[in-house]
Amino acid sequence: MKPQSSISRRFLLSTMAVLPALSAPLLPIPAAAQTATMADPLPSWNDGAAKQTIIEFVQATTTQGRPTFVPPERRIATFDQDGTLWVEHPMYSQVVYCLDRVPAVVAKKPELKNVEPFKTVLSGNREAMAKLSMQDLEKILFATLTGMPVEEFNAEVKKWTESAKDPRWKRPYTELTYLPMQEVLRYMRANGYKTYIVTGGGQDFVRVYAEQVYGIPPEQVVGTAGGTKYGYAKDGKPFLTKEPKLLLNDNNAGKAEGIHLMIGRRPYAAFGNSPGDRQMLEYTWAGDGARLAMLVLHDDGKREYAYGPAQGLPNTKVGAFTPSLYDEAKKKGWTVISMKNDWRRIFAFE
Amino acid sequence: MKPQSSISRRFLLSTMAVLPALSAPLLPIPAAAQTATMADPLPSWNDGAAKQTIIEFVQATTTQGRPTFVPPERRIATFDQDGTLWVEHPMYSQVVYCLDRVPAVVAKKPELKNVEPFKTVLSGNREAMAKLSMQDLEKILFATLTGMPVEEFNAEVKKWTESAKDPRWKRPYTELTYLPMQEVLRYMRANGYKTYIVTGGGQDFVRVYAEQVYGIPPEQVVGTAGGTKYGYAKDGKPFLTKEPKLLLNDNNAGKAEGIHLMIGRRPYAAFGNSPGDRQMLEYTWAGDGARLAMLVLHDDGKREYAYGPAQGLPNTKVGAFTPSLYDEAKKKGWTVISMKNDWRRIFAFE
Repeated sequence: MKPQSSISRRFLLSTMAVLPALSAPLLPIPAAAQTATMADPLPSWNDGAAKQTIIEFVQATTTQGRPTFVPPERRIATFDQDGTLWVEHPMYSQVVYCLDRVPAVVAKKPELKNVEPFKTVLSGNREAMAKLSMQDLEKILFATLTGMPVEEFNAEVKKWTESAKDPRWKRPYTELTYLPMQEVLRYMRANGYKTYIVTGGGQDFVRVYAEQVYGIPPEQVVGTAGGTKYGYAKDGKPFLTKEPKLLLNDNNAGKAEGIHLMIGRRPYAAFGNSPGDRQMLEYTWAGDGARLAMLVLHDDGKREYAYGPAQGLPNTKVGAFTPSLYDEAKKKGWTVISMKNDWRRIFAFE
Repeated sequence: MKPQSSISRRFLLSTMAVLPALSAPLLPIPAAAQTATMADPLPSWNDGAAKQTIIEFVQATTTQGRPTFVPPERRIATFDQDGTLWVEHPMYSQVVYCLDRVPAVVAKKPELKNVEPFKTVLSGNREAMAKLSMQDLEKILFATLTGMPVEEFNAEVKKWTESAKDPRWKRPYTELTYLPMQEVLRYMRANGYKTYIVTGGGQDFVRVYAEQVYGIPPEQVVGTAGGTKYGYAKDGKPFLTKEPKLLLNDNNAGKAEGIHLMIGRRPYAAFGNSPGDRQMLEYTWAGDGARLAMLVLHDDGKREYAYGPAQGLPNTKVGAFTPSLYDEAKKKGWTVISMKNDWRRIFAFE
């Protein structure tokens, strides 16, 4: 297991979620495109066990007459986001968003200017920011993710995703999605699966861009969620304000609980990459019939990042799945996806 | 407004939800049936303002080129259940379920046999049961709706809905759905709307039968929801236990907040019948473009029940919408559906 401080930090960082901008729209593919998909539904994957497992699972659950056939209405597939559908390194995009929002928050509340942790964030000193305590981070998350009307928050996130860029690739964060996983999303949808994001990140944050980036509508995004408060504007119009009240911490056991709360059915397929996904994978795998549980292994330091078990290190970075989860995967028959070996291409822009 | 005690009671009764059995499966209608629907999509409705309003709304939002056109992915319609989709009198079906479950709970925990309120419920004395306090009811709800694995709860509800019968009509509760509203559900789905139940009743309870009874899958049922707790059985299999912890009270402002939490989009159409639906209707109505807000008025004492403003009485029974909501509806242009005048047939079995 990770050192407690690291786990708590990850918990906290993802307690409320935030993210990126609009690359090429990837909406559910039209009927015409499905023929091409059927030829090779996963062209960015190298031939191998991982690709084969996905294809065999889809065939097993969608072919009429097979004992493993699953009726269309029960076809649910869940995907972790950070580190599974897109890059999570060196920092969750939502945390970048929160830090980027601090100047605007301080402009509205000048009394925060000389108060920590806002003072440190405003200084731009990365080294000092990396040393912020959990309590400090919590203050930043609450100040930047709550207290405003839902519509205002959505507009801010949208604006940010359209302008902010990842420093390594110099592209909007929304372009840093993994092409092979986009292919899996489309392949499963083409076969009647409802695809859900089940993220430790903030539900409201991810919902802003999920439809454009992944073809996943807001109602199919389950994430860490806070409460809202219904009220009326001066003109009598009702609106919802985001409250600093945690309803669902969609990490670890919270992922299985969140799936029950928001979907109400056990998934047939689940994809993750870190210890926070363990229970979602276990819960999915424990169902009857054919089930698919897959872990993305970050072992490609050249094209993306290498961390966690790929380095032979147990607890090196946020988002790694620990050797114990890696071992559980091997023992149970879950499939580990090697980014280095299984993915021919990683990004669409390459 | 209702006397506070009545409101609180309603709140409590619906704090966790429960319901009925399997009448004719009403799944999304196949393409072949849609032609008939197009001839008259609402054959159980009399011609009049209510029917016309529904049809005009659907045409306004689904006809390409109209300024009020709504893209398919944004077509969300929400329906209260009790008193809107089916009979809520003289008692919510879920409350009947909870009372019916008491003997089984006591059989497992014999120490409750001589403890109130279980003793009174076991006596079968209806008059004494009607006098149970809110605290008593709360104990019954918690004892019968929480503390068991999700699968066990689902199986119990399914069994009950297949056997329990309403005393007036001598039919399973699930047959007491309003045929005109079933037609609205199918008509809207045939026109690309995603139909949701947004109920003060228990989310887990309604999800058990909603697909079979209304053609609405579990993931499109939003209701009063409690937490679950992830754990492992002796054989290592994970399972979820229903906890006595309220996450969402899906009544009043909670309906608008619940829609944001579970769907993340503002509905274009909403149907309700009681003060608990007020905020859902307001929130829906406050959106841009064409919106539909409708209230079912229970004014048919012969074929169903008459209560609330239909009797000229402000606060007669649970589930009535008060004159003030009735007035708000008239003032804002919401459409009131008269069961007596607008509905040619009320039940499919008639």
